[in-house]
Amino acid sequence: MNYIKIFAPATVANVSCGFDSMGFAVDTIGDEMTFTKTVEKGVKITQITGAKGLSLNPKENAAGVVALAMLKEHSVDFGIEITMHKGYSPGSGLGSSAASSGGAAFGVNELLGKPFSSLELTKFAMLGEKAACGTPIADNVGAAIFGGFVLIRSYEPLDIIKLPVPNELQLVAIHPQIEVKTKDARDVLPQKVSLKDATTQWANVGGLVSGLYTSNYQVIANSLTDVIVEPARKHLIPHFDLVKNEAIKAGALGAGISGSGPTIFALCKGEKTTKNVYEAIQNAYSDKNIDFNLFTSKINTQGVKILETK
Amino acid sequence: MNYIKIFAPATVANVSCGFDSMGFAVDTIGDEMTFTKTVEKGVKITQITGAKGLSLNPKENAAGVVALAMLKEHSVDFGIEITMHKGYSPGSGLGSSAASSGGAAFGVNELLGKPFSSLELTKFAMLGEKAACGTPIADNVGAAIFGGFVLIRSYEPLDIIKLPVPNELQLVAIHPQIEVKTKDARDVLPQKVSLKDATTQWANVGGLVSGLYTSNYQVIANSLTDVIVEPARKHLIPHFDLVKNEAIKAGALGAGISGSGPTIFALCKGEKTTKNVYEAIQNAYSDKNIDFNLFTSKINTQGVKILETK
Repeated sequence: MNYIKIFAPATVANVSCGFDSMGFAVDTIGDEMTFTKTVEKGVKITQITGAKGLSLNPKENAAGVVALAMLKEHSVDFGIEITMHKGYSPGSGLGSSAASSGGAAFGVNELLGKPFSSLELTKFAMLGEKAACGTPIADNVGAAIFGGFVLIRSYEPLDIIKLPVPNELQLVAIHPQIEVKTKDARDVLPQKVSLKDATTQWANVGGLVSGLYTSNYQVIANSLTDVIVEPARKHLIPHFDLVKNEAIKAGALGAGISGSGPTIFALCKGEKTTKNVYEAIQNAYSDKNIDFNLFTSKINTQGVKILETK
Repeated sequence: MNYIKIFAPATVANVSCGFDSMGFAVDTIGDEMTFTKTVEKGVKITQITGAKGLSLNPKENAAGVVALAMLKEHSVDFGIEITMHKGYSPGSGLGSSAASSGGAAFGVNELLGKPFSSLELTKFAMLGEKAACGTPIADNVGAAIFGGFVLIRSYEPLDIIKLPVPNELQLVAIHPQIEVKTKDARDVLPQKVSLKDATTQWANVGGLVSGLYTSNYQVIANSLTDVIVEPARKHLIPHFDLVKNEAIKAGALGAGISGSGPTIFALCKGEKTTKNVYEAIQNAYSDKNIDFNLFTSKINTQGVKILETK
């Protein structure tokens, strides 16, 4: 294989109760990336479309950082040229840097002849996350690489559990076109939480995991509750409560902040409810004088997808 | 039915990471209770064997409190006489009052013609827990009534999820004959915990639930970690670290404090490891000049068992 074109999915991290521990991959929104073997060694990023402000210098680009680290670990007698088309905006809270990082890890691994496992690819992708956001968090990159729902059970050692995706589960997400910096979203987090709230939260994490294994949508709905992070962060997102309430009124199982925002996600059971929730959110936000992107998607169960190889 | 004799199981609450949210029922250790219809209305406790210091006054006895509450809710033209044989010591951390409360809820319900669901029985049993311990906690009574592993997903409203029990999972437990008062064990708990520790904990709760659904013993082992409650409580239990380390060295998946202690539980995969862990704990504790009970058991998957009816 000398060339591979892939789709690297957007991802929703945290999933209400599962702060820094859970994430899932989106089926329809993501980046397209190509990886081509070159005679000249090293990593070159030759084109980035679909988003502004991303560096072509591999050392300053999440995908580049990942590719360089992989070639350092597994040396070969060729180089790799990367192009990226960002299918959605960085800073959305949908794991934009994770798509680039996870996509790079996957694509480079294919050209190298697949020497690395998915867990190893996640570790490489975390280097890209660290370069882009300052923190080597695995919930977005883990979801992008493994697909479906993932639980980051532990960071040391890194332990990722892929959870099942109930068939009828779908996503509605709205990205208000405002900026929430990951750093700001981290700064508002409480350093300490009450044991009572923590207990409530881990009971819900247990419930969400159970609901995913049993396709019990009511249990999933009950468990999509965040008593710790959402209350601290939601003021950063205009009309968060309105969107959440309207989504739930329209039948969503639950709604919350995607990653560190500003995207708000809602999980729904089935096409019809998904459509209703989409419309309810659209109505709620249309007179707010804030531009927004709104989309629906199935849950991506396979992670990065191969679009073409040569 | 005029008479029923039941077995009400001992239970292990918390299960390392799942403080106040998880519990499981023990197969071989528990109380035996009888319930007999009487012409005279009301509740009478006529005999308690196997333990000292428990009141025969129904209003001051966990089982009596439960039975009275149930008869108040579902009035009948007969009374109920209760006898109890405690199969293990109160104050062990194995849910002694929960066995009485859960057993009473189950037994009385049978004589009443089963008007109440398991969830409603758990709510009644929580009244007994409150009378005995001051806190209406559901992890022990929920496990006693539902059997197997339970997740208390929420208290308001009460929501209990029964989790699967992997086939080969077994228990070794040691009860050092010292007293740890539930209140003391609650007083040493931190009021606040770091967000980082809380995140670690809920990732492990998610992992434990996943491991139970998939019978993945390695995932269960990895997840049996408690970074919040065990560090705060373990000094109340003599030689806790020694027992835990020896159990794990002998092959246990994990070990921790059962409820608020002093019983230490270890979960094991299969007969052989269970036997090895039993012996390792016996060796570790035998020269410590503290009397102890040590036992092994399968996990009880059905909850309260009917032994005899007339």
